Amino acid sequence: MSTDEAFPPVARNPSRTYTVIGLGAIGGYYGGRLAAAGHTVRFLVRSGAADIRRAGLEVTSPHGDIFLPTIDVFDDPTHVPPSDVVVLTTKTTDTLAALPLLDTLVGPSTQAVLVLQNGLGVEATVAERAGEVPVVGGMCFICSHKEGPGRINHLDYGAVTLGRFRPGYEPAGPTPEVTGIADDLAAAGLPVTRLDALGTGRWKKLVWNIPYNGLSVVLDAGTDQLMAHSATRELVTSLMHEVHGAATAAGHCFDLSFVDTMLTDTEKMTPYAPSMKLDFDAGRPLELDAIYAAPIAAARAAGAPMRQVEALHHQLRFLTGP
Amino acid sequence: MSTDEAFPPVARNPSRTYTVIGLGAIGGYYGGRLAAAGHTVRFLVRSGAADIRRAGLEVTSPHGDIFLPTIDVFDDPTHVPPSDVVVLTTKTTDTLAALPLLDTLVGPSTQAVLVLQNGLGVEATVAERAGEVPVVGGMCFICSHKEGPGRINHLDYGAVTLGRFRPGYEPAGPTPEVTGIADDLAAAGLPVTRLDALGTGRWKKLVWNIPYNGLSVVLDAGTDQLMAHSATRELVTSLMHEVHGAATAAGHCFDLSFVDTMLTDTEKMTPYAPSMKLDFDAGRPLELDAIYAAPIAAARAAGAPMRQVEALHHQLRFLTGP
Repeated sequence: MSTDEAFPPVARNPSRTYTVIGLGAIGGYYGGRLAAAGHTVRFLVRSGAADIRRAGLEVTSPHGDIFLPTIDVFDDPTHVPPSDVVVLTTKTTDTLAALPLLDTLVGPSTQAVLVLQNGLGVEATVAERAGEVPVVGGMCFICSHKEGPGRINHLDYGAVTLGRFRPGYEPAGPTPEVTGIADDLAAAGLPVTRLDALGTGRWKKLVWNIPYNGLSVVLDAGTDQLMAHSATRELVTSLMHEVHGAATAAGHCFDLSFVDTMLTDTEKMTPYAPSMKLDFDAGRPLELDAIYAAPIAAARAAGAPMRQVEALHHQLRFLTGP
Repeated sequence: MSTDEAFPPVARNPSRTYTVIGLGAIGGYYGGRLAAAGHTVRFLVRSGAADIRRAGLEVTSPHGDIFLPTIDVFDDPTHVPPSDVVVLTTKTTDTLAALPLLDTLVGPSTQAVLVLQNGLGVEATVAERAGEVPVVGGMCFICSHKEGPGRINHLDYGAVTLGRFRPGYEPAGPTPEVTGIADDLAAAGLPVTRLDALGTGRWKKLVWNIPYNGLSVVLDAGTDQLMAHSATRELVTSLMHEVHGAATAAGHCFDLSFVDTMLTDTEKMTPYAPSMKLDFDAGRPLELDAIYAAPIAAARAAGAPMRQVEALHHQLRFLTGP
């Protein structure tokens, strides 16, 4: 590939600056797309900053490769210049360690903190830390992997769904910070959906995440195998119905037909190992709190306990040690 | 061991004759004890009759070894003389294949058919086949294995609980056939409990069988590991509560404290792989219908669905193929 081909078109209004915490499958892909579209993007990483700075950022993707020979990479948050948007892209298992970074990265000029993570309730701790700065929750529907420092392999999908976070997932309606970020992502070539009610979006994503992530780990199976056997297809459906019931009880309503859509969409998907399965096989911590414990607690609080989801969570806890 | 030592004392009234279908961990142990106590016991096996006839039956046991150099072994049901009691000791997965044998083995002189099997509803099909002959259900609390043809290794326990079967597990009260068999077993040195309400006994055994059998397979773990982790201890408890709730709804009442007894008894047990785990690891069929499908259906019919048990059953079906 020539260097020319690697540079996608520059966005019309690339003045908004971004600081991306984490340069993995999510941070590398979305940060890379924003940078390739002309935005100033600063990456904050835990290790390997010098190597990445030397080699640049390379994203291979069926939607167009990206190669950025020069990128701003930091391992010290105090060296990062103020950005308009701070983006948290670590796994939720690293959120606790990442939170103190916000004290340094979020300043008077910060327009928003964008949380690109899985699960439920992930914005709440960030919002507490961010004070008056608006927090935007984002869900990524993407299949991508970090292959090495500064090397991301994007396989498929890439859509982002965004909404303003309010405590208790109260619907926030349209807000300027969501519109601004959504426009930037869309201009960078990404399919974007803006949500007036972030909570509904979070629960809808759980409809997929809860059954497939956990069962793929416990049963050592891909989504295709889980869909091919009538027993697990029934179990997936039943788990989805529990999530839908809990969401409804918690005030985040969507049509039950969404379950059927998820089932048929998954059957059409290329055989795919959910992120939790990849984490488990690689011996990394699983996002059990964000994807299981928090929704389970919310469901119980709403008076609609998810009994089968709870059983799956117990099994996952057993499999991941004491 | 000398031959003299291998012969236990003869029972006082060994006139009742037995035909035992199956010479495995159950049939070999209980049939062996009855034969050693002086009863005429005929064994019906699927294969290897000549070898067993030549080598005899050997049971090693902490409660006293048994060696019977001469035993009546048949592989053709038409060659088996009429017995007073016909005992079905196959796995429930073989019941369908064994049922036609009853047409030959059960005759006008048969006093009872004894079903020594796991699960729920196992007596119903036998009762249909046995016509007017009383059916007695028995549950064995035993740890034993077949090591080879005619060679049984008894490790621990051995108690039997017996009760007369009535359709729908209606309580039958004390009956002569139960008393007779119970006396024979007790005289052969076995701890025996007679039940007036067989259904309650069946459900109580499911309190143990449902959580430990399934979870040991799905999580590849022994009872000790399942009890040592707080997550699986909680899940086991929760599954037991579901079984207790379904039993109660189905009219088979026992105190909830039985759950605590099962938990503490299991913690005190020698680390132990449940029979379903042994079957799974050996590639044998699992007793899913008797231990899961039948209780699940009964619970639904009683209006108390066991949601977590259903999830576990789905997982087990997935793991055991299409």
